[in-house]
Amino acid sequence: MQTIDLNCDMGEAFGNYPMPNDEILLDHITSANIACGFHAGDPEVMQRTVAMAIKKGVAIGAHPGLPDLQGFGRREMKITPNEAYQMTVYQIGALYGFVKAAGGKLHHVKAHGALYNMAAKDASLAKAIVEAVHDFDPSLILYGLAGSQMIDAAKKIGLATASEVFADRTYQDDGLLTPRSQSNAMITDEAQSIAQVLQMVQHQQVQSVSNKNIPLKAETLCLHGDGAHAVEFAKLINERLKAEGIMIKAPSV
Amino acid sequence: MQTIDLNCDMGEAFGNYPMPNDEILLDHITSANIACGFHAGDPEVMQRTVAMAIKKGVAIGAHPGLPDLQGFGRREMKITPNEAYQMTVYQIGALYGFVKAAGGKLHHVKAHGALYNMAAKDASLAKAIVEAVHDFDPSLILYGLAGSQMIDAAKKIGLATASEVFADRTYQDDGLLTPRSQSNAMITDEAQSIAQVLQMVQHQQVQSVSNKNIPLKAETLCLHGDGAHAVEFAKLINERLKAEGIMIKAPSV
Amino acid sequence: MQTIDLNCDMGEAFGNYPMPNDEILLDHITSANIACGFHAGDPEVMQRTVAMAIKKGVAIGAHPGLPDLQGFGRREMKITPNEAYQMTVYQIGALYGFVKAAGGKLHHVKAHGALYNMAAKDASLAKAIVEAVHDFDPSLILYGLAGSQMIDAAKKIGLATASEVFADRTYQDDGLLTPRSQSNAMITDEAQSIAQVLQMVQHQQVQSVSNKNIPLKAETLCLHGDGAHAVEFAKLINERLKAEGIMIKAPSV
Amino acid sequence: MQTIDLNCDMGEAFGNYPMPNDEILLDHITSANIACGFHAGDPEVMQRTVAMAIKKGVAIGAHPGLPDLQGFGRREMKITPNEAYQMTVYQIGALYGFVKAAGGKLHHVKAHGALYNMAAKDASLAKAIVEAVHDFDPSLILYGLAGSQMIDAAKKIGLATASEVFADRTYQDDGLLTPRSQSNAMITDEAQSIAQVLQMVQHQQVQSVSNKNIPLKAETLCLHGDGAHAVEFAKLINERLKAEGIMIKAPSV
Repeated sequence: MQTIDLNCDMGEAFGNYPMPNDEILLDHITSANIACGFHAGDPEVMQRTVAMAIKKGVAIGAHPGLPDLQGFGRREMKITPNEAYQMTVYQIGALYGFVKAAGGKLHHVKAHGALYNMAAKDASLAKAIVEAVHDFDPSLILYGLAGSQMIDAAKKIGLATASEVFADRTYQDDGLLTPRSQSNAMITDEAQSIAQVLQMVQHQQVQSVSNKNIPLKAETLCLHGDGAHAVEFAKLINERLKAEGIMIKAPSV
Repeated sequence: MQTIDLNCDMGEAFGNYPMPNDEILLDHITSANIACGFHAGDPEVMQRTVAMAIKKGVAIGAHPGLPDLQGFGRREMKITPNEAYQMTVYQIGALYGFVKAAGGKLHHVKAHGALYNMAAKDASLAKAIVEAVHDFDPSLILYGLAGSQMIDAAKKIGLATASEVFADRTYQDDGLLTPRSQSNAMITDEAQSIAQVLQMVQHQQVQSVSNKNIPLKAETLCLHGDGAHAVEFAKLINERLKAEGIMIKAPSV
Repeated sequence: MQTIDLNCDMGEAFGNYPMPNDEILLDHITSANIACGFHAGDPEVMQRTVAMAIKKGVAIGAHPGLPDLQGFGRREMKITPNEAYQMTVYQIGALYGFVKAAGGKLHHVKAHGALYNMAAKDASLAKAIVEAVHDFDPSLILYGLAGSQMIDAAKKIGLATASEVFADRTYQDDGLLTPRSQSNAMITDEAQSIAQVLQMVQHQQVQSVSNKNIPLKAETLCLHGDGAHAVEFAKLINERLKAEGIMIKAPSV
Repeated sequence: MQTIDLNCDMGEAFGNYPMPNDEILLDHITSANIACGFHAGDPEVMQRTVAMAIKKGVAIGAHPGLPDLQGFGRREMKITPNEAYQMTVYQIGALYGFVKAAGGKLHHVKAHGALYNMAAKDASLAKAIVEAVHDFDPSLILYGLAGSQMIDAAKKIGLATASEVFADRTYQDDGLLTPRSQSNAMITDEAQSIAQVLQMVQHQQVQSVSNKNIPLKAETLCLHGDGAHAVEFAKLINERLKAEGIMIKAPSV
């Protein structure tokens, strides 16, 4: 039976600033990547989000980002591999604190924003991050961009991996995402999004922007948590995948 | 045989700002309370300090503080017990990350600065902090001011405790520290400091500012890490205690 | 002719976190207190909010707060008068930067949250804050709680003042706000809010919680910028005041 | 008569972390670039440093940096020109606050660390920064790397400029600094440093790493404030320049 994981970034509220979709989104996903206080999240938000994920049986991941709250971790910073290692260990540990205190289990790690994108292309950053994950707990699963340096590095060090694909982004012939700087980077049509997801999950391939069918490993699908249609789309894709006979579940080691 | 633990706050460097005494101080102490990034410390400093402590066989503790880097965690903030719980879990987890990744063992928790002082007097903050420690790992030892609410709360919840005493602070008849606002709060004479330490360790009592001998539990002695004489005094008190036949070792559960 | 100023805290967005009411609220108020980056706001938000206020002809004030983004400047911190002076000068200067660069005029200063409340009661903090304002520019107007230490300190140093009153808070016999810890602190009934505002503006008095009519200087009315009804209430009170023949304008020196 | 300005980054202490050389260095320099709280500095440090500079008659500049306290503003961040503009206005304004409150005069602006280096090469960042300076006050002098985009952009917008040279860095044939990544980037020999300074000041040229004499505008010399020999070297170069009959003074418009 075909399976797919639905993951979503969670706990990206901060202090007085809410992220109101989080609770309801947890009803439609199987993996929650919870922010750890560097690009978003704070101790109160982390505790609350971990508690909700445990209650709803959603797999909990640490979602470490660059130390840039104003930029939401989306601005590239020139960091060394050592710094990437250190900020990853710190943030995994911090989130683990809440998971442990609540009697839950830490399941995976997914880097955020610019850290995710930089490490997808930079082998030395990728190596540093997967070492941080592995040194902390070798049974954690690394979520990374399908076909990226992160997946390679994780496999090399012996971590289980989940290759991540996107419903609202187009792909190039090399199997990587079309850069956002290009006009055809985003898929805004819902039907096209769903068709792409089904192709990726059912056939492990994607139609590129030049209309080639490119092989692609699709183990976890990234859903967005913000925006007006986030909840609606999560519900819709969840139902549609089930209707196709696809099992929705978090990866296991 | 009489025993005492010598503890010191460590890892309170930050970014470009060093704390140059840390490495050599580790030769003279048995417990290191390592800052966790809120009042001082950062991921690089934490990793480096944990590695040094492991190498030198010094027991590692988390040293959580208020989120106030500019104030070095010394300015009181009106936080709720929930906030105290959350910031304690976060910081213990973050430090645990580095300890775990380095193959070490987290041994104790000691709150820092204003958080330490507020919780010494406020039963609800004390309860929140010891719950955070206990929820994270009930085998951790709580270091707290001798005779304080923290020690009471920790015992109540079932944590092992180490009652902390000071070499350079005077005591009142109630067994608590003379507030720094009073002119006789500090002991600046080295001989008097040493005499007080020996009385506390050998007789579990201290001579108060009104010249009464007050019973006092002395299980761990706080040494300061900054200042010109910090290293010198740490070495001196270590040697003097040994010369008196007192064993210097970290507490065990 | 009776006049009143309508002021609202503005620019309290941060990074990725919006405050969507700001722009439309500016149509209904005469003074904008713009956050300066310590409790909320960031350089981008400040620039944008200053530009909107200039465009809509709303008087611009600096809205300095405690350095506590997570707590939104609402948690009391034990700061010294020197620290209050320094953080006020810093934040006024930062906001002035954007006002000056945009060709506008800085009009007033209103402290935020815990800083506002602490200084309302603490004469030494009040003195430090008004000195900061006066040292920066003695022609700025100080907005402070009617009847508070802030108004006293500002008058003493020679600053123009605007005594602030609230539509949704009850008052005690001493003319000060009922503490939020008491159950009758808030006015949730809209008609009662409006009645209180009219009494304050038209008669310079307020009916206290014990039903006494207490004299009260009402020169600026604080409107809230967040919450579902914020825009609606701002529009309503603006129209009602005008219908009563009251002129709505920012204070001038 | 030949003249040169001696500038030094100042006020880069933070909270509990001192920069002990600042006060004495002010005796040997003519321009102080004072950190504004983003890469270093805090309101207390800024107030104190401004007061010292005024007392010693040293020209005061704002020294804005990237918002990266842990990285001391030395890690490149991918920021937009708008963000560069906004962080520059904010920081100039904040420092101006202290200068104005103390009755001093803001004289110049020099970007810090990665912001300085990025803008030296990137015309759009350079343009954004000089626009921020010009919008705030067109009479401020822009200090920038000799031969860089910053000097070009500042001239174009109509700002006075001071071309900055270094005593401890080697130069390439294009008149720019040898990148630190190359082994011959630094001059560690004191005599060679002094010889280079004299050549630059007296002949407005520098001998490049390939032994060519390259023309170079030398209007302000950057001295370092940290390190064991900082004070000593500042004193030495100050005396040597005077002995050569060179006048040491801050640039004027």
